[in-house]
Amino acid sequence: MAEVFEGSPEVVMVRNKQVIFKDYVNGYPKESDMVVTSDATVRLELPKNEDGQVLLKNLYLSCDPYMRGRMSKRLEGSYTPPFTPGLPISGYGVARVLDSTHPKFNKGDLVSGITNWEEYSLIMNTESLIKVQQTDISLSYYTGILGMAGVTAYAGFYEICAPKKGDTVFVSAASGAVGQLVGQFAKLSGCYVVGSAGTKEKVDLLKNDFGFDEAFNYKEEQDLNIALKRYFPDGIDIYFENVGGKMLDAVLCNMRVHGRIAVCGMISQYNLNRPEGINNLMFLILKRIKMEGFLVVDYHHLYPKLFEMVLPLIREGKITYVEDTVEGLDNAPAALVGLFSGKNVGKQVVAIARE
Amino acid sequence: MAEVFEGSPEVVMVRNKQVIFKDYVNGYPKESDMVVTSDATVRLELPKNEDGQVLLKNLYLSCDPYMRGRMSKRLEGSYTPPFTPGLPISGYGVARVLDSTHPKFNKGDLVSGITNWEEYSLIMNTESLIKVQQTDISLSYYTGILGMAGVTAYAGFYEICAPKKGDTVFVSAASGAVGQLVGQFAKLSGCYVVGSAGTKEKVDLLKNDFGFDEAFNYKEEQDLNIALKRYFPDGIDIYFENVGGKMLDAVLCNMRVHGRIAVCGMISQYNLNRPEGINNLMFLILKRIKMEGFLVVDYHHLYPKLFEMVLPLIREGKITYVEDTVEGLDNAPAALVGLFSGKNVGKQVVAIARE
Repeated sequence: MAEVFEGSPEVVMVRNKQVIFKDYVNGYPKESDMVVTSDATVRLELPKNEDGQVLLKNLYLSCDPYMRGRMSKRLEGSYTPPFTPGLPISGYGVARVLDSTHPKFNKGDLVSGITNWEEYSLIMNTESLIKVQQTDISLSYYTGILGMAGVTAYAGFYEICAPKKGDTVFVSAASGAVGQLVGQFAKLSGCYVVGSAGTKEKVDLLKNDFGFDEAFNYKEEQDLNIALKRYFPDGIDIYFENVGGKMLDAVLCNMRVHGRIAVCGMISQYNLNRPEGINNLMFLILKRIKMEGFLVVDYHHLYPKLFEMVLPLIREGKITYVEDTVEGLDNAPAALVGLFSGKNVGKQVVAIARE
Repeated sequence: MAEVFEGSPEVVMVRNKQVIFKDYVNGYPKESDMVVTSDATVRLELPKNEDGQVLLKNLYLSCDPYMRGRMSKRLEGSYTPPFTPGLPISGYGVARVLDSTHPKFNKGDLVSGITNWEEYSLIMNTESLIKVQQTDISLSYYTGILGMAGVTAYAGFYEICAPKKGDTVFVSAASGAVGQLVGQFAKLSGCYVVGSAGTKEKVDLLKNDFGFDEAFNYKEEQDLNIALKRYFPDGIDIYFENVGGKMLDAVLCNMRVHGRIAVCGMISQYNLNRPEGINNLMFLILKRIKMEGFLVVDYHHLYPKLFEMVLPLIREGKITYVEDTVEGLDNAPAALVGLFSGKNVGKQVVAIARE
């Protein structure tokens, strides 16, 4: 793929395919909000006089619901800056270091962290990058169970929900990147766990592959309150919230005394100009419920604990992680957009290069 | 007042004026939902063969917003049973023990706890009653700062909000039974505190008597979001929630990272058939906010800590407690109903008898 474009024979320039963010988005994002181009080129060598940089060959990219927020003009209260129109999308990924002027990283290292949606990325802010140490495990897992999704599930469930054996646990968007882990963590903690998802295929996955006690297709329920009462006749101790909106309102009516709600995401609301109103917050008082929002950025210190817990489980086959992988940057926009209609089955990954 | 009605000369029967709950209420309660009668009589002596009872002469009754819940037919999730149509209202009060067959209480003791809205009450379930020990302090304070309101403010502020010096604190319904204490606790903790209330008189009270740094009349604000930004340009660390509805929605937009919301009450919602929708819960995630509902029933163990803290402050005049006292059971229905239009200035008390 590498071609010598110009200049001295030592400088190798190659094509750098990119997914460019076109402009700020209103409502549901569309594939056409991004454009895939092969116009850019990249020098496969760093200038020696610039310290602290790494040149990455991107291998796997992660599609995450929070990225919708970066497609809007800076919102009041937003914790990440918006994407820049005309520049590539950025996000979490796994990459090989092709060149480095940073003392922490060497040529040949595998890293995970924030990179760009392109074949090769020059990273000047290396703060988010960490070295991939365990290479006997699928590298793509570092975008999910061993990445943000893993720490998110770990922090939200163990730190915020404080599970006890016998607790009843409900997980929405339960087959997603985070939900499938929360459900399995809950079973490992001796909880009764029910998940909701939006297709029969996902519901089957929850029951047959992830070991949820029960699962249901929320799209087939006339009344979510009644659906929840069916699976939780005595109420819900822990709700792991991924969707917001009507599901949250129904859950609030079904919480038990001293219940805990970890608010991880509200994907049903991200594309609405005005979020739906939640009417049942009085139950926070009546049932003395703790409801806590959280972001993975506050829990990076838990990576070692997550790895200590899940690496043996992965190696022993005691935890399952389902990925939905598309091949190549050309398919990346559709994969990202698909998150918001629930097209993905499991963790959505874009494979850019398999070494 | 005592008259000999019938029977042997040893048995003194007296009139027992009562506030009778007429029927379940929809929407705002009205005075006419209760009726004051003098039809009942009471024997001023307990039968000796019935153990574990006390006969009380009620002195002060407490009007509390939670009592609205007891005027509705049992709601799903409600933590207290509804009042019984045809029987007296019950609630928190202070009383003198006239007779006792309970080993814990003696004739002449002063007690606080759950009693009935009548002159004399025969209490068979004495579980909620505690002896009043400090009699150098206004007895009515045991319905407020030394009663439920005090423990509510103490638990909500110190246990749930976990204040740090320099935190910015917002209190709604800030001149009420609980709010006025939360504001003063916040000042004692070195916080910046702002309160909202519904009249100029209350706003003045907040600033001049309770030492709030700032206060505003929410009824005079076109846009609560703008009002909050005026007083909290850098956001709110702690919100002590007493009102719900539009105020909560505006506060959510103004919370700081890792903010805490103690949900004590939502008085603006109690008389609506369907509570208002809250649209801004996404901020729970963006700002990693903990929002926790609580009830005083879970914090009875904090009474000793509350007393240890506030008794010296009361005696030294370092804490102020404003009461709004009406005289006599005839005025009790109006006092209770008045809570929901904000008629009361400070803690609403009904004085039945001053000894």
